Amino acid sequence: MAEEKQQGITETKKGNFSEWYNQVVLKAELADYAPIRGFMVVRPNAYVLWESIQENFNKAIFKRGVRNAYFPLLIPKSFFEKEAEHAEGFEPELAWIESDNKGVEEKVAIRPTSETIIYDSYAKWIRSWRDLPLRINQWCNVLRWEVSQTKLFLRTREFLWQEGHCVYETEEEAEKEALMFLDEYKKLCENLLAVPVLPGQKTESEKFAGAKKTFTIEALMPDGKALQMGTSHNLGQGFAKAFGIEYLDEKGVKQLPWQTSWGFSTRLIGSIIMVHGDNKGLVIPPRLAKTKAVIVPILFDKTKEKVLKKAKELEKKLAPLNAFVDDRDSYSPGWKFNEWELKGIPLRIEIGPKDLDKKQVVLVRRDTGKKEFVKESKLAERANKAIEEMHKDLFEKAEKFLKENSTEAKTWQDFKKALSQKKLILIPFCNTTACEEEIKDETTATSRCIPFGQKNQKLKCIKCGKETNLKVWFGKSY
Amino acid sequence: MAEEKQQGITETKKGNFSEWYNQVVLKAELADYAPIRGFMVVRPNAYVLWESIQENFNKAIFKRGVRNAYFPLLIPKSFFEKEAEHAEGFEPELAWIESDNKGVEEKVAIRPTSETIIYDSYAKWIRSWRDLPLRINQWCNVLRWEVSQTKLFLRTREFLWQEGHCVYETEEEAEKEALMFLDEYKKLCENLLAVPVLPGQKTESEKFAGAKKTFTIEALMPDGKALQMGTSHNLGQGFAKAFGIEYLDEKGVKQLPWQTSWGFSTRLIGSIIMVHGDNKGLVIPPRLAKTKAVIVPILFDKTKEKVLKKAKELEKKLAPLNAFVDDRDSYSPGWKFNEWELKGIPLRIEIGPKDLDKKQVVLVRRDTGKKEFVKESKLAERANKAIEEMHKDLFEKAEKFLKENSTEAKTWQDFKKALSQKKLILIPFCNTTACEEEIKDETTATSRCIPFGQKNQKLKCIKCGKETNLKVWFGKSY
Repeated sequence: MAEEKQQGITETKKGNFSEWYNQVVLKAELADYAPIRGFMVVRPNAYVLWESIQENFNKAIFKRGVRNAYFPLLIPKSFFEKEAEHAEGFEPELAWIESDNKGVEEKVAIRPTSETIIYDSYAKWIRSWRDLPLRINQWCNVLRWEVSQTKLFLRTREFLWQEGHCVYETEEEAEKEALMFLDEYKKLCENLLAVPVLPGQKTESEKFAGAKKTFTIEALMPDGKALQMGTSHNLGQGFAKAFGIEYLDEKGVKQLPWQTSWGFSTRLIGSIIMVHGDNKGLVIPPRLAKTKAVIVPILFDKTKEKVLKKAKELEKKLAPLNAFVDDRDSYSPGWKFNEWELKGIPLRIEIGPKDLDKKQVVLVRRDTGKKEFVKESKLAERANKAIEEMHKDLFEKAEKFLKENSTEAKTWQDFKKALSQKKLILIPFCNTTACEEEIKDETTATSRCIPFGQKNQKLKCIKCGKETNLKVWFGKSY
Repeated sequence: MAEEKQQGITETKKGNFSEWYNQVVLKAELADYAPIRGFMVVRPNAYVLWESIQENFNKAIFKRGVRNAYFPLLIPKSFFEKEAEHAEGFEPELAWIESDNKGVEEKVAIRPTSETIIYDSYAKWIRSWRDLPLRINQWCNVLRWEVSQTKLFLRTREFLWQEGHCVYETEEEAEKEALMFLDEYKKLCENLLAVPVLPGQKTESEKFAGAKKTFTIEALMPDGKALQMGTSHNLGQGFAKAFGIEYLDEKGVKQLPWQTSWGFSTRLIGSIIMVHGDNKGLVIPPRLAKTKAVIVPILFDKTKEKVLKKAKELEKKLAPLNAFVDDRDSYSPGWKFNEWELKGIPLRIEIGPKDLDKKQVVLVRRDTGKKEFVKESKLAERANKAIEEMHKDLFEKAEKFLKENSTEAKTWQDFKKALSQKKLILIPFCNTTACEEEIKDETTATSRCIPFGQKNQKLKCIKCGKETNLKVWFGKSY
């Protein structure tokens, strides 16, 4: 068929990684460029992954007492100005609404994040200690008018995300839960997306505008660049002060509460594509996949009816995996194999007339491509097991890559050498903005995170030589 | 307790309906006003209803071959201009982005609806008959800068909705599926929300800007105003022409496809509040409620532990109803009863020390307030049945109201009289824009829908006297 030629990925992952990525995104119909520069269309093949992430994460946070809500898209200018650091951080990327003919009382912008508009409501809603802790999350679109080049899923002006916003009576609670939600992010990445992450704290210069502390999980992409997968902020009391959030404690005394916010975005989908994809296209981590198996019947005129009937039977049997029969007449089995490999369905089940006689099917795992004959009676059980094996293998492969491509450096020379080898590097660092700027200017590398649980240690900053007790992960990043 | 005084609704539904509605929305914590006029915050108590609507509707449309996606928030000016009627309809309500400092190549506005931006992508994606039918839906926020007064859930500048956009090979398919999705809307309203609706077609003057035909379902609110609950459009080929959507048919000949779009919004939540709410507050239709039951333990010092233990046991037993124990120490049982009545939880289960001895509980339905002793061993079964009975009763009550408040009129005088009685009125109507304008100017009533399946009949328009074969529902509306 003429079509088959155009169907596949024409660049290799090891060749031109960036071009390979774009081809997978476009050809697997995950996303498309929008008419306005910097915007994207999330196509059904990717949106279903986002829905799966949402379902899983909702379950996790509902257990933690979080409830979902929806706050307005537009934020008044005066709100941004209430928290100085926050304003400075987001001002350059705001998209303002034309106010000439709208009778708008005040200048308003599309939300780049919703701290300010949400905390305005919190100031109205929170009265006493009985109202705390307050834990609300929203799934929404946000807009940051960046000038850097568009990268589908990773860097677009509009993206989808969740943002959690919690209020607590004490600093301890806020810190504990900021870390708890970070841990939920880690579990989501590792247990659902099969992407290993390094958790830690952001340096002074990389923390969120307005936060006291920012915690992060970082993943390593195959091109050696780190990708920030989610952040959780201990906001301290700065926003509470700025927005007048107060509560009466049990003794009736007015108090300032402590706050957290935490978010991850559709860039998680970008990480999946990069980490698990191969030269044939997308590989959907099997626990994440809604459609975990495709059944391709091998059809010949004489046995067509019998084989199709059996395929439909298997579809029913594999309903918990959302298996479906690709019974399109106008495509050959080979074309179908290529299409579902490109689109990353975890398992393929082939059934032809010979298999029918032997009461067996062929099971093929998307990641390994290995074929396996499975007795029909054992198929459901075997498919479930294959899903779990595949998850484990994908995760372990990614973890091995992360280990092999992260290292420690003690000298500036070693650091630069490791950087040129596209590694993530742990270095002694003084955690000052000035020093981080210098490193960035000289190497384009940025700090990724300060690992938790560092022992008391006497070190010297690899750049400025000042004494420090911290080791920090640095690397190039998206 | 001093707090109890402020807790409840202080206006009656039959008294000042509008004030009663606002109080229910605010006091049941369903929504709040936002800092910018015309915007709203959807609070968790309402957002969870939206999530329940989403889950249910997703299930229904996935069965129909629809997949979800996400298209950009911002739409270029030139797109609106491609379809003349559409442009004219939406232009006055667009919010434009300031382009001075953004380096925007073209003027862009926030989506008021997404036909144009979606069909731009469809023109790229659709190549052959193999790509059809194409059925995509998106859940998103839209913005229409209206000047009329804000009414939470019913009329706000930003709202949440779903918009389905389908493309077909033939006109027959498009028409059939436009009606099929309308029917899914009807089922959602009646089977989930317990709100009866009148289905039909919009008149020429009320149809969607750019559509060939608009179908609608209309509900009647307790104040005699109609509420449009959802619309489904047969778009004909106008947008396909304007956006250059074409496909090659099986013979390889270029063809223009036929399109539909269909949507409902968070105003459905407004209808639930209005139709089912009472003087105590919200009544959540029980199939829609995620939390279908609250368990209130009656606690005294001596028996506290035993009663709490039993309450927790019941919570587990009623897990399929998402039942929860309200074990807050700082509130009395009476306060709790009021709170959960205000917030509309369908079932309340009371358990005290005496009940414990008798191995029974008290079951109270939110809509009737009737108390019923139920044996512990029968509780799960009885609660499930009560849910279904309550759904049926709510629906029948609303249906009775609709029947009693809709009528037919044959003369202009009868029509005006019925309008003054706040009724929905079926009248012979010529279906011209001019005549509809006159009726609107004189009475503020608008056409709601043309009922399906009208027999061939010789009638005279109630307004202009011209011959017609249509009867049309008219009424005041939100």
